[in-house]
Amino acid sequence: MKTQMRAEQTRARIIAAAEGSIARQGYDATSVDDICRAAGVTKGGFYHHFPSKQALFVEILESWLSKLDVSLEEVGADAATVPERLLRMGQLGGHILNQRSGQLRILLEFWVQAAHDPTVWEAATAPFRRYQQSLAVLIGSGIDEGTLEGVDSRVAGQAIVSLGVGLILQSLLDPQGSDWGHVVQESVRVLVDGLRRRG
Amino acid sequence: MKTQMRAEQTRARIIAAAEGSIARQGYDATSVDDICRAAGVTKGGFYHHFPSKQALFVEILESWLSKLDVSLEEVGADAATVPERLLRMGQLGGHILNQRSGQLRILLEFWVQAAHDPTVWEAATAPFRRYQQSLAVLIGSGIDEGTLEGVDSRVAGQAIVSLGVGLILQSLLDPQGSDWGHVVQESVRVLVDGLRRRG
Repeated sequence: MKTQMRAEQTRARIIAAAEGSIARQGYDATSVDDICRAAGVTKGGFYHHFPSKQALFVEILESWLSKLDVSLEEVGADAATVPERLLRMGQLGGHILNQRSGQLRILLEFWVQAAHDPTVWEAATAPFRRYQQSLAVLIGSGIDEGTLEGVDSRVAGQAIVSLGVGLILQSLLDPQGSDWGHVVQESVRVLVDGLRRRG
Repeated sequence: MKTQMRAEQTRARIIAAAEGSIARQGYDATSVDDICRAAGVTKGGFYHHFPSKQALFVEILESWLSKLDVSLEEVGADAATVPERLLRMGQLGGHILNQRSGQLRILLEFWVQAAHDPTVWEAATAPFRRYQQSLAVLIGSGIDEGTLEGVDSRVAGQAIVSLGVGLILQSLLDPQGSDWGHVVQESVRVLVDGLRRRG
């Protein structure tokens, strides 16, 4: 039991060290040696937990996304209508953007690595498709309940994901350029207004 | 005269070779040697035209953007209203996304380099701010002419730029994931509907 706890702690230290190093100096410039040094583990310890730097990288992404999934599910659970639920998801997105810009920087690295590496590509694009799909289903329910207008729900889902991705990217590149959390909330509001059923 | 023409041709060959190589293998992996080999110029010839690989990189970005500026200006010049003008800009954006995905891939490289390199950062973020600003002015005119509702025009400008950036990124990462040109047009339409003045 103690051994397992220590293993969990080592794993968590490796992940935290990798997040810090990748955010500071980028994925390519971060070596397994750097991560081991920052985490205070041996190379053997590293490879006991992760087969490769790439596998660790993919695991970081997937662990964030599964936390995000839970939060998105919770925040909208008791909303009375689909537009209300989308607005709450926008508010959550705004908070995340304001609080996690250090972590989000790694996302940018994922997207670039994805352009060159099929395994990372799979891990980076699968969530986009999943969010597009969930949003399309949600917008479809909005059309059914009569709060949203007859748009192509698949396209609307892709538009919302694109907006989110673009806001993440812009807030990373130009953190001082705006109050990005506010821009997220307002953008989602405008988009939801565009989808709402008229009169 | 002939010498100047030859110089222009060499410059154009260097730019084309760099665009190809960066799009295929990324900015970091592309050396000045690679570019010279692909362009059929000597290293001396390269440095006669560009002080560094970075300077060439920045010039590629700026030359695209100035062409884009002209096209965006032209496409909306005779639109009767601001919403109409925004929709036409969306259509143009859709065409560009469908036709230039090879070139656009370099944009992704710019954004990543920008996170590590202050000169590239300046060249990569300045256009975002400029487009945000122009769109804010345009949306302001729409509010004045009574076709758009009283939104914060600055935030609306940032939302539109974010949507564009996100669509570029998603179409690059997942070209088979959708008819992205269509998604661009539809997204802009939904966003413009969200900004429109109600009845």
